[in-house]
Amino acid sequence: MPRSGEDARRRLQQAALDLYAERGFDATTTAEIAARAGVTERTYFRHFADKREVLFDGEAALQAALAAAVSSAPDDAPPLAVLRRAFRAAVPTLEAARTVTEARHRVISASPALRERDLAKRQSLKSTLAAALEDRGLPGRVARLAADVGLVAWAEVVDRWLDDPSASLEALLTREFDDLAGLMSDVAPGR
Amino acid sequence: MPRSGEDARRRLQQAALDLYAERGFDATTTAEIAARAGVTERTYFRHFADKREVLFDGEAALQAALAAAVSSAPDDAPPLAVLRRAFRAAVPTLEAARTVTEARHRVISASPALRERDLAKRQSLKSTLAAALEDRGLPGRVARLAADVGLVAWAEVVDRWLDDPSASLEALLTREFDDLAGLMSDVAPGR
Repeated sequence: MPRSGEDARRRLQQAALDLYAERGFDATTTAEIAARAGVTERTYFRHFADKREVLFDGEAALQAALAAAVSSAPDDAPPLAVLRRAFRAAVPTLEAARTVTEARHRVISASPALRERDLAKRQSLKSTLAAALEDRGLPGRVARLAADVGLVAWAEVVDRWLDDPSASLEALLTREFDDLAGLMSDVAPGR
Repeated sequence: MPRSGEDARRRLQQAALDLYAERGFDATTTAEIAARAGVTERTYFRHFADKREVLFDGEAALQAALAAAVSSAPDDAPPLAVLRRAFRAAVPTLEAARTVTEARHRVISASPALRERDLAKRQSLKSTLAAALEDRGLPGRVARLAADVGLVAWAEVVDRWLDDPSASLEALLTREFDDLAGLMSDVAPGR
């Protein structure tokens, strides 16, 4: 995409985020987003399939980055250590985008339609991570469980990071996965 | 509630499940459910607050039973062993209701409105379990993480049980929690 295309895309995302925050998701039209971004509605739909996708542009890149980090982890690393490592690799990107991430989370929380799309993206991320773990030789069932567990821990970390402006994402991640390890070290079989 | 009240309640639940399966959730009215159950619509609303609640009648009892099982676990049992024990206590109830549970899951999966209510109930169950674990002296943050992890494992177990008519819920539960322990036994801190 040419430079002007990328620029329009970023302006559309910011305009959508601002309008959804000001008026609510339901009360905003794609025509209004396009107008605020200074482009036509046709341009909007060249970039985004619908009114929701404009908020999820980073998801595909994040999924790809996490999957690549899983694939490149040392062969002998256990599944949750692999996931911890992958999430850690995503920390700088998220730290750099804190303000936008906060605004985005507020807007998504306020709209059932956006919450549903967010959930679908989370399911898709779970499948991607499970597939990447399976490629490392883990049985499919265990790979899905590991992805599930890793993602609930990650979701808690991100929520806590967004709640506390002084928190370090990396420190929260380390603490959460240490807690996970503690929790599971003594699930005595058959107990 | 008098015997006839309980009876009407059960008939309303069965009628709702049948109609939602036949026509879909959106295309069914409370008047139709009431008619199929042989009671008035007023009776419907004496039992259930809305069109969705009729499918979630067992939730409160399940939550109470799980919380009680968490509270009565031995003092020295680690959190995920406590949850495993609580889920195991719920197995006979679920095994006895397999046919209804299957039909209910199919109906819920097919409707966004029901999926959203289901999700809200799951959040509520998570809070209940986290609170019960916190009452045992676990820090709040770790209690929430344990409830989260326990519930994703439990959800996988129930999904697998519903997918495979020959599966034993108890055996699936045992295997899943054993897998959990394996996932993390070697998440070395800082790795």
